[in-house]
Amino acid sequence: MSDDERAIRQVVETWMAASKRGDTATVLGLMTDDAIFMVPGQEPFGKEAFAAASKGMEGMKLDGKSEIVELKILGDWAFIRNHIDIAVTPPDGNTVRRAGYTLTLLHKEADGQWRLARDANLLTVRN
Amino acid sequence: MSDDERAIRQVVETWMAASKRGDTATVLGLMTDDAIFMVPGQEPFGKEAFAAASKGMEGMKLDGKSEIVELKILGDWAFIRNHIDIAVTPPDGNTVRRAGYTLTLLHKEADGQWRLARDANLLTVRN
Repeated sequence: MSDDERAIRQVVETWMAASKRGDTATVLGLMTDDAIFMVPGQEPFGKEAFAAASKGMEGMKLDGKSEIVELKILGDWAFIRNHIDIAVTPPDGNTVRRAGYTLTLLHKEADGQWRLARDANLLTVRN
Repeated sequence: MSDDERAIRQVVETWMAASKRGDTATVLGLMTDDAIFMVPGQEPFGKEAFAAASKGMEGMKLDGKSEIVELKILGDWAFIRNHIDIAVTPPDGNTVRRAGYTLTLLHKEADGQWRLARDANLLTVRN
């Protein structure tokens, strides 16, 4: 495994671990300032909107796992396809499970750190 | 505009024009043999399944437009974000409109032709 591949896998792992513990600052540090998130039925949104949505998740319990099913490095860019399966439980206790795939572009920035730059999230609610 | 950018825009235009006239052979020629398509709520699928689905569309009228909102070339790979708005009308006449964004990776293959390689399709039904 190349150093870049190892670093990208680490970004994905750190992202999931930080999300689970509600550590939004760490998650925001793993995305480029111009990151764009795409989900079905909404306009694409950026880092500020991501931060606001994360704030709205405070008090919720997030659990889950992600598995990289494809990773390809393209110089200082890379793409991954990720399978994600998460469960979000608000304080009132009704867990919602969402699962599916993402197509994600990462960029190796000037400081040598890989960060998420574009993300298409195809997760849907599962029963 | 670079030659590569012009070529990629041409792929997108040709794809849409061919789709409108039901020319599946042309569309299949614009994707790599290992192309992967991702949509919400389904497992990713490849070129053969795309061809089979296109066969199932025979007799339907497709109209619509696409607009590239971002295009970035990464050597012999590129990504685009596309906004697509299509209307599909089966022979019985009930038009279904779907709109939204895609995140798409293209690859410039050994023959110099850019082809679609990975596609995350976030379109949803609109009224």
